[in-house]
Amino acid sequence: MYRPATADQLLALEVCAGIGELARSERFAAADAEMVTAIVEGIGAFSAGEWAPLNRIGDLEGARLENGVVRLPEGFAEAYAHYVDQGWNAIAAPAEWGGQGLPFALGCNVLENLGSANFAFNLLPMLTTGAIDALEQHGSEAQRALYLPKMISGEWSGTMNLTEPQAGSDLGALRSAATPIESGDHAGKYRISGTKIFITWGDHELAENIVHLVLARLPDSPEGSRGISLFVVPKYLVNADGSVGPRNDLRCVSVEHKLGIHASPTCVMSYGDNGECIGELVGAPNRGLMAMFTMMNNARINVGNQGVQIGERATQAALAYARDRIQSVRAGSPDRKPVAIIEHPDVRRMLVRMKALTEGARALLYYTAGQVDRGTLGDTEAAARGECLVPMLKAWGTDIGVEVASLGVQVHGGMGFIEETGAAQHYRDARIAPIYEGTNGIQAADLVTRKLGLEDGASLDALLGDISRDAGEETGLVRLAEECRSIADWMRGEATLDDRLAGSVPFTTMCAVAVAGWQLLRQRRAIEQGTSPSLAASKQVSVRYFLDHIVSETMGLAAGARGGSTLLYELSNEALCA
Amino acid sequence: MYRPATADQLLALEVCAGIGELARSERFAAADAEMVTAIVEGIGAFSAGEWAPLNRIGDLEGARLENGVVRLPEGFAEAYAHYVDQGWNAIAAPAEWGGQGLPFALGCNVLENLGSANFAFNLLPMLTTGAIDALEQHGSEAQRALYLPKMISGEWSGTMNLTEPQAGSDLGALRSAATPIESGDHAGKYRISGTKIFITWGDHELAENIVHLVLARLPDSPEGSRGISLFVVPKYLVNADGSVGPRNDLRCVSVEHKLGIHASPTCVMSYGDNGECIGELVGAPNRGLMAMFTMMNNARINVGNQGVQIGERATQAALAYARDRIQSVRAGSPDRKPVAIIEHPDVRRMLVRMKALTEGARALLYYTAGQVDRGTLGDTEAAARGECLVPMLKAWGTDIGVEVASLGVQVHGGMGFIEETGAAQHYRDARIAPIYEGTNGIQAADLVTRKLGLEDGASLDALLGDISRDAGEETGLVRLAEECRSIADWMRGEATLDDRLAGSVPFTTMCAVAVAGWQLLRQRRAIEQGTSPSLAASKQVSVRYFLDHIVSETMGLAAGARGGSTLLYELSNEALCA
Repeated sequence: MYRPATADQLLALEVCAGIGELARSERFAAADAEMVTAIVEGIGAFSAGEWAPLNRIGDLEGARLENGVVRLPEGFAEAYAHYVDQGWNAIAAPAEWGGQGLPFALGCNVLENLGSANFAFNLLPMLTTGAIDALEQHGSEAQRALYLPKMISGEWSGTMNLTEPQAGSDLGALRSAATPIESGDHAGKYRISGTKIFITWGDHELAENIVHLVLARLPDSPEGSRGISLFVVPKYLVNADGSVGPRNDLRCVSVEHKLGIHASPTCVMSYGDNGECIGELVGAPNRGLMAMFTMMNNARINVGNQGVQIGERATQAALAYARDRIQSVRAGSPDRKPVAIIEHPDVRRMLVRMKALTEGARALLYYTAGQVDRGTLGDTEAAARGECLVPMLKAWGTDIGVEVASLGVQVHGGMGFIEETGAAQHYRDARIAPIYEGTNGIQAADLVTRKLGLEDGASLDALLGDISRDAGEETGLVRLAEECRSIADWMRGEATLDDRLAGSVPFTTMCAVAVAGWQLLRQRRAIEQGTSPSLAASKQVSVRYFLDHIVSETMGLAAGARGGSTLLYELSNEALCA
Repeated sequence: MYRPATADQLLALEVCAGIGELARSERFAAADAEMVTAIVEGIGAFSAGEWAPLNRIGDLEGARLENGVVRLPEGFAEAYAHYVDQGWNAIAAPAEWGGQGLPFALGCNVLENLGSANFAFNLLPMLTTGAIDALEQHGSEAQRALYLPKMISGEWSGTMNLTEPQAGSDLGALRSAATPIESGDHAGKYRISGTKIFITWGDHELAENIVHLVLARLPDSPEGSRGISLFVVPKYLVNADGSVGPRNDLRCVSVEHKLGIHASPTCVMSYGDNGECIGELVGAPNRGLMAMFTMMNNARINVGNQGVQIGERATQAALAYARDRIQSVRAGSPDRKPVAIIEHPDVRRMLVRMKALTEGARALLYYTAGQVDRGTLGDTEAAARGECLVPMLKAWGTDIGVEVASLGVQVHGGMGFIEETGAAQHYRDARIAPIYEGTNGIQAADLVTRKLGLEDGASLDALLGDISRDAGEETGLVRLAEECRSIADWMRGEATLDDRLAGSVPFTTMCAVAVAGWQLLRQRRAIEQGTSPSLAASKQVSVRYFLDHIVSETMGLAAGARGGSTLLYELSNEALCA
């Protein structure tokens, strides 16, 4: 039985996001302790009660394209309607358009709970959130007024249409086109045409309308990434009064067969098959990629969050199984009675490890979210720190999601490999997160190129310096943070760009573990000062495990981080493939 | 397009298994260089040509129970018949019963090629091999004469029936029963009754008969593992002349829905529903578990082999994709032309890592197999070393199988998550190997209990000592081997049993990496002396990567290996689950 991780979430919100401090600002004044507790408990109960029971049927039946309509299994429509009715979609959305205007960190908590309950279903609000961000930041006043209220309520959902078959990580290669409409009803708008792939929740019947944000090229636009514009292309055209009008010329032509997240329709979308797909330009021409980047930070945090989500769910399932499953006498025990497998040292090691990794990723998640919120309040240093943290959270958070889900399978033994048990679904679902929203390799590249040099390197350096200074007695953690600094120095100095990229993934893991370990340490100290006594005993164990085991292991990555690129290119492509 | 890894297999057979030296013995004299090459090339071509094309359909359609009959997809029956006709099943089987009597290491090569081509299908011959071993070592002369020739040819297949719902890792808990038959046609035999689960290839129509080896209890047998006997229970009773007689009272009642290996029917088997299931005792009463243990070493090697198999297949798929997929300009390149992703440093890092891990596991596989063959020739020291190596190979080999398959998904990016691409199937298939034939936790427990103390500790110590001495200039490898020795000393000394078990999995990985690194080093030296010039350049790179990166990372596990168990038990079960 899945239960929301309310106590640990509240601790992370308090200590790592610093929600109390945020609530002292005018903007976030509503986020007082009572409100925070009400939200965390409320969304936890809602998710566990209404969305979690749909997780398995979502996996089994999945989303299906039937006669041009994308169908979800029984129960999804109702569960989404309840989510909208109860106002959960609006928590962190701007108050100006009907949102609650609460901190981003609380929005993360909503998604964490939804995603732990139902990983695939959570992608629906998650994508809508991204589309809201993009429209809020780049849409005209009219566009915002037309779209945001219904998207914020959740009555309408949103999507991001970036990828094309030849344009994945390299969006500059995209070919979808937008042609200005000179006259008629839609004068000033654009005819959109092209095919987009990997469109998450690209079509479905759960929302009244779907607001597609589509990257496309204007006629005579420059080649590559400087010639891409952003368009809003609703499934149903929207009348001036905000009501839903006629169907737009776009459709889902196929739903992918995927390893996991079966309940999330991953669509191939076709725009303008009949030459009548109408879209509006969002922001300035040829600035579409810029618009995407401004919302990408938060979107990547939301994906890193998914590692926490699946980690929590998989850990709970493994704990429950290990406590019930009786097998074998405890080694060395004079008592010949078989025990629950939770008693066996190696099973216990796996469980403690799962807990420590999940709590570490959660600590990093809320620390990152808190920096974003500080940035919103005008703290530019926090904003820059947040930008450094994003690739760490996205990459490491999703990596540990996969590791924890895999450990979950292992704890279940043979039963873990049987689909009915559920552990296998977590293992399959978790695997998408290191891939989408920029592969973890892209995240690591972001860290060792853009983020490494942010504020002339001061941002990352200050973060690592804070850890070194603050970790004090935890010498392993201090050593890790110092090693990260030293590698960062080397990367900024003698290392070539190839060297940096070759070491980028291990370096990203090292930095992420350093920050997560630090935030866990801060949680432990807070508990020692009386916060969250309910977690006191268990947090001691997970923090100790993290600092002694995870941090030590991670030090072993240093050779890879500073190993350089020469070896990788010693062989020709042909020889490597021979 | 999958191609067998013939050159690297021949190198590993020569350098790590020492097949040339084995061929100097009378027993293995037939295994001369020409024969070895013929077998490795032959089974490679057969597997790639006939079994590999069935890998995807096997996954898609899987094995199905239809009206009491287990059906495999189109093509499997024919491909199995060809395998039997060409004599591949008999390579390493005893000459006395129609086998070729060649070294076990060559039998491993047959399975490696079959399993790389079709991971799930390979379980059919793999299980038959285990049943042959058990009957050969423990069956009566009459039983061997009746069953072995047809099992060795492959006309009949074999299964192992150990697990029951309440008896997984703890076989002592099993309840299936065997009642002596006092009179009538079957006097002297036994009536078998009980339900067995997780029976790999438990039923199918590819072989004329299926020889089930079943663990069950005799009346009044002692409780626990000392009261278990082994029985041979054929699907069709066998007439005295060896022809197939009437159907025995046993059946497959269900086929599991699994994460992977869909083409391998994992059966729930019911014995004696009508009280007429006839079996014969194999070996002495109450010695069934002992009989299992004697064949288990080889069975575990065969599972460790599966890590190599999936690693090879996933690596080839990733290399092919990375070479074809054009995406993004090479970072820092003045040329604005997008390149194949194999050019990007982090993709290249993943590919080199996949190659290094797979080749390292292969080196460990054939080194282990060679020790087993030396044991067969009467070298007791090699036999004991082989026993130390088995848990390392089984655990680490299958762990890297999962890691490499996961990296394979990552190299494919979004396409890796789409089932049609095939990378996802490898990721799903690979996940079973750390679980069955003794979970990797059980392997690690075996290493830190039984194997650690073998010959008073001299076996493991000599192995690690050989590495330290021989690795010479490779100081990282020497340090790792020395660290393993020091941990082994601690485990034999002040560490409690719980401490040993708590550190068992990281310790097992450390030992495995030390041995694999050493064997790779020996391969490199052999190449420098002129062996296998075709691999000269690429082996330099994979060995260097393994020694610099994998070995360094693995040193990071030392803290976990010697961390003790106290922390794991600080919380009560209730607190851990809270």
